[in-house]
Amino acid sequence: MDKALEGIKVLDFTRVLAGPFCTMMLADMGADVVKVERPGTGDDSRAFGPFVGNESAYFMCLNRNKRSIALDLKQEKDMEICKQLISSADVVVENFRPGTMEKLGLGYNELKKRHPQMVYAAVSGYGHTGPYYGRPAYDSIIQAVSGLMSITGHPGGSPTRVGASIADIVAGMYTAFGILAALHYRQITGIGQKVDVAMLDAVFSVLENAVTRYFVTGEVPQCIGNRHPSIAPFTAYKTKDDYIIIAVGNDRLWEAFCSAIGKEGLLKDERFSSNKKRSAQWESLDEILADILKEKPSQEWLELLERAGVPTAPINTIDKVVENPQIISRNMIVRTMHATVGQFLVPGVPVKLSQTPGKVEKAAPVLDEHRQEVLSDWLGLAEE
Amino acid sequence: MDKALEGIKVLDFTRVLAGPFCTMMLADMGADVVKVERPGTGDDSRAFGPFVGNESAYFMCLNRNKRSIALDLKQEKDMEICKQLISSADVVVENFRPGTMEKLGLGYNELKKRHPQMVYAAVSGYGHTGPYYGRPAYDSIIQAVSGLMSITGHPGGSPTRVGASIADIVAGMYTAFGILAALHYRQITGIGQKVDVAMLDAVFSVLENAVTRYFVTGEVPQCIGNRHPSIAPFTAYKTKDDYIIIAVGNDRLWEAFCSAIGKEGLLKDERFSSNKKRSAQWESLDEILADILKEKPSQEWLELLERAGVPTAPINTIDKVVENPQIISRNMIVRTMHATVGQFLVPGVPVKLSQTPGKVEKAAPVLDEHRQEVLSDWLGLAEE
Repeated sequence: MDKALEGIKVLDFTRVLAGPFCTMMLADMGADVVKVERPGTGDDSRAFGPFVGNESAYFMCLNRNKRSIALDLKQEKDMEICKQLISSADVVVENFRPGTMEKLGLGYNELKKRHPQMVYAAVSGYGHTGPYYGRPAYDSIIQAVSGLMSITGHPGGSPTRVGASIADIVAGMYTAFGILAALHYRQITGIGQKVDVAMLDAVFSVLENAVTRYFVTGEVPQCIGNRHPSIAPFTAYKTKDDYIIIAVGNDRLWEAFCSAIGKEGLLKDERFSSNKKRSAQWESLDEILADILKEKPSQEWLELLERAGVPTAPINTIDKVVENPQIISRNMIVRTMHATVGQFLVPGVPVKLSQTPGKVEKAAPVLDEHRQEVLSDWLGLAEE
Repeated sequence: MDKALEGIKVLDFTRVLAGPFCTMMLADMGADVVKVERPGTGDDSRAFGPFVGNESAYFMCLNRNKRSIALDLKQEKDMEICKQLISSADVVVENFRPGTMEKLGLGYNELKKRHPQMVYAAVSGYGHTGPYYGRPAYDSIIQAVSGLMSITGHPGGSPTRVGASIADIVAGMYTAFGILAALHYRQITGIGQKVDVAMLDAVFSVLENAVTRYFVTGEVPQCIGNRHPSIAPFTAYKTKDDYIIIAVGNDRLWEAFCSAIGKEGLLKDERFSSNKKRSAQWESLDEILADILKEKPSQEWLELLERAGVPTAPINTIDKVVENPQIISRNMIVRTMHATVGQFLVPGVPVKLSQTPGKVEKAAPVLDEHRQEVLSDWLGLAEE
């Protein structure tokens, strides 16, 4: 057994992002993920640009390590194959709008009658219960409804969407965790269950400190830009050529910081003599530091501050991140060899296991690429 | 067995956010999480405001369902107890700066000699390998280095930190997933392993579409505010009193949208006759719609658009989110009864399992609250 999840069969009905992210996590750890796609078009995200040749880069980066079979669930013969695949799966995952699997006769309540040991996972915008059941959702909609946008952005500016589709992704991550928890229970008891994850619940749960703050103080959390609510200086500053983050986490670092930037005079300024005072006076402090920091380019400041042991970092753009020595050393960019596209780079596996390391072994499949292989491996069928 | 992870013993050395978030996920699913804290002060976050009585609300929202024992690892007697607890744990989790556990003689390479079946999880800023090994990191630093800030924000504005500590949290979530994957492998083979998660890898992996886009096109992804890169209108608009999100995902919805806002004239405008054209002309379109949407308050627009089936949502502030009927119906706000604070509200469990539902059963512990209980349960010791 080379991989942690080797031998776990996942039948994957998911499309676009939240569901595929979840099954990617499982596949990276060695689960055998078979993607059931619509004949002709496949996963909706196969139509999302940019493209390499005829293949969607968006699709390829989320579906590595998976196999594809195209099935038309409106055709009796394909539905029969689908049901046989379900019978031999340990886990079924879907991210349709709630009710869709029921319409196909594949809802959890139906399936569990014949497959009480099955783990069935559904990830959706609002979940499989409650007054918003069945409402359409997109990542942006959930970022808005959940409150996340209301606390992201600069003071006085407008609410801001997180630049990555964090609502989809966090929901996908929770679903993968829920599936493994359910598999653990099943391994001991033999009993399966349904895992129901809502993007709204997921994002709500990652706000939690903001929610608690509101309950305790009655004050509605606002956008505070890049600064820390109770530590200063701890924010982004514009340098001569770019932005950097400086994180002066305590009074000892404040001394190191002032020396490093050659402004020991600030250490005598009573307004800034403790973190508590600096936090209270952050606006005056920011004004002073902004004037100082704009004098040199980022690289000079970074070197000065790093030498002084002050936590600091560039605000990297994506072209810089992919060249970061730590990212490269941690194998976070890996080469795949795609059936038609050839070499294609994808992000690596962020969960590093010492005994059974996850791996990107297969590029994303072309539509229906593994039909024969899957029918043979899972169902023991020879050529159709 | 009422909970999925019942019987799993987790010895938890974590502080503040990434680690405690991970062990909260495990505890919510029934794992027995024992938090080892420094005598006197405990988890650093016990000092983070706001406070309720003497207790930190920040700490209380992340440490429900856990038990606390205070141990001074510089004292021989306490270190002996610690080692015995390690011996009876299934999982050890820590989020110290890399090298700290080694200095205590509790590094993984040491522990695995005596406990080859142990799952040892470490979550840190940059991970336990690579040129950045041991560097200090904060959430903001990782949001900056990873590139996430560079794609969050409004065009022409400055890079923006996500308002929640998403780098810590996403790393904590991956760690929880990694622990369950390692436990699965252990259940089958009896062999433990180390789970090493870096906040930088974690955030890099959730950008992935931006990374792939860059590799394929060579264009550095920029802040694009709240809009969708290839669908329009699909962004936030200011209404008379607030902001709303409108997500016109296709041409059919464009018709429904124009009718709903009483501007059928737009349907005849050739510039906007397909999504492709609207996306290309998004600036002109935004200008027109901004003028229209500022005429009525959000509530009126939301009702009009919902009736027409156009995906839309308010950009909720936190006070609104906690009253959202879906959040309440999904049990996402739960009451705990704290030993000294009394009633305290915390976010609920986002992973809904049908057979073994997670639960918030215990409020966060006061420091050392469960000393006797833990020594007796885990080590079979009577009164010290």
